[in-house]
Amino acid sequence: MSVTTKATIASFGGKLLKLSHNATTTRCEMSFNLYLPPQAQTQKVPVLIYLSGLTCTAENCSEKGFFQHGASKKGIAVLYPDTSPRGLKIEGEDDSYDFGSGAGFYVDATKAPYNAGYNMYSYVTEELPQTVFAAFPQLDSSRVSITGHSMGGHGALTLFLRNPGKYKSVSAFAPITNPINCPWGQKAFKGYFGEDQQQKWKEHDATELLKKWSGGPLDILIDVGTGDNFYKQGQLLPENFEAAAKEVGQSGLTVRYQPDYDHSYYTMASFADDHVEHAAKYLFA
Amino acid sequence: MSVTTKATIASFGGKLLKLSHNATTTRCEMSFNLYLPPQAQTQKVPVLIYLSGLTCTAENCSEKGFFQHGASKKGIAVLYPDTSPRGLKIEGEDDSYDFGSGAGFYVDATKAPYNAGYNMYSYVTEELPQTVFAAFPQLDSSRVSITGHSMGGHGALTLFLRNPGKYKSVSAFAPITNPINCPWGQKAFKGYFGEDQQQKWKEHDATELLKKWSGGPLDILIDVGTGDNFYKQGQLLPENFEAAAKEVGQSGLTVRYQPDYDHSYYTMASFADDHVEHAAKYLFA
Repeated sequence: MSVTTKATIASFGGKLLKLSHNATTTRCEMSFNLYLPPQAQTQKVPVLIYLSGLTCTAENCSEKGFFQHGASKKGIAVLYPDTSPRGLKIEGEDDSYDFGSGAGFYVDATKAPYNAGYNMYSYVTEELPQTVFAAFPQLDSSRVSITGHSMGGHGALTLFLRNPGKYKSVSAFAPITNPINCPWGQKAFKGYFGEDQQQKWKEHDATELLKKWSGGPLDILIDVGTGDNFYKQGQLLPENFEAAAKEVGQSGLTVRYQPDYDHSYYTMASFADDHVEHAAKYLFA
Repeated sequence: MSVTTKATIASFGGKLLKLSHNATTTRCEMSFNLYLPPQAQTQKVPVLIYLSGLTCTAENCSEKGFFQHGASKKGIAVLYPDTSPRGLKIEGEDDSYDFGSGAGFYVDATKAPYNAGYNMYSYVTEELPQTVFAAFPQLDSSRVSITGHSMGGHGALTLFLRNPGKYKSVSAFAPITNPINCPWGQKAFKGYFGEDQQQKWKEHDATELLKKWSGGPLDILIDVGTGDNFYKQGQLLPENFEAAAKEVGQSGLTVRYQPDYDHSYYTMASFADDHVEHAAKYLFA
């Protein structure tokens, strides 16, 4: 459970910590970043988990997402996990940008050879928070929200919907909302789960999970840019998620189609404050 | 004078344009970025020039500096030039990170072979703004401020102090304020000017220029992190700049020594809003 500090960087009045630990779920050393806002020096602060998209590490959003700006004002810590195990030497894991390393999809793989460590679901929902809360007592483990981008938006939505009550709120940027019906999701789920499309795939599909949600009224904020090529290519399918919400009578889903915005961190930076605000509403309720 | 648009990216309600043009002063194609805030759609907006540091291009601060956040609120365009000519094929220009390409130091070289194109002073003060104002009539050429980081902070201070009245205000992050007395500056000035330390070097040294300033009361904002390794190594020497201000009775210099902050864009992002605010005070006076 011990955590190694590789760097401490002053940011917006607080500290961005570059950390690592030996993770048992993923069978390797995992790097992650943790932003401690200035308020953490004198009081317990809640935590917003930010899940990154394909190809990313903890660094991208720490540098370019500007969550620290809003988090420092509100007094929220931000936890940036990595997107997959690293260096497991599974044959083919580094061959494509959208599967294997950098593309763990926040699931526990059941199919060989990826079941030997590709357990990002257990890692993000259990091992990483346990490690972080043990190492940083200034974090309040009873107040955690979650957000993410693209594959990480899929992660945020599915982790929230699979675990009623675990997270105080959820939001997402350009999330993959219906992976069983898009190329990215189909490739990943086939590789991590095999062909069990009726059962296993649906257990990690936000649109399917939403249809079965029984946890009460939802309040979900999603931003999608209309200039996002992956949206245009049908990788994100937010309309399917909206249709599912309508089908089950959930009126608290807000999908904002932001004119011209693309899939990049410029979009996250532009709306990060709104997503911190969304989380703060519940973390400080 | 024609400008090529390579990309248009939505950012904070405005547009970040990735542009290039064939520059005569630097004898090559020059890339630069221009952020147009939302207000530029309906009115003339002033311009803040941001000069980057060693090794950087227009991209670094566009992605990681967070200037668009404040500029979009105030209605200020941000112009991000490159840091040197590119691809001139001068022998040795790519050999070190602190001289030649990526390290133009915002001077016009007088020594061969760098006098064949290393004219970043003329480029930034004359050719680039002329090009940009001709191509973007929504920019107000009568209201321009300047800022920058490290080598770009040196650029901002020296361009401001050499051209009374040209810029409405100046500020800097971790600027090289006394290049004739630091290793970076001595290497660059020797390479671009030769050994003429008494005359030519001093003409591009902010501390020396401040001693001779006759343009009236100054209001300069500088942020330097106390965790900045280059500050600790004596590359920045803000104390010398402060001493010169005191010597000539300029009380409007504010150097904020920010505890623990380093030389990175995390520092710029943390205080970018303050520098936009500083510029806005004069651009909208």
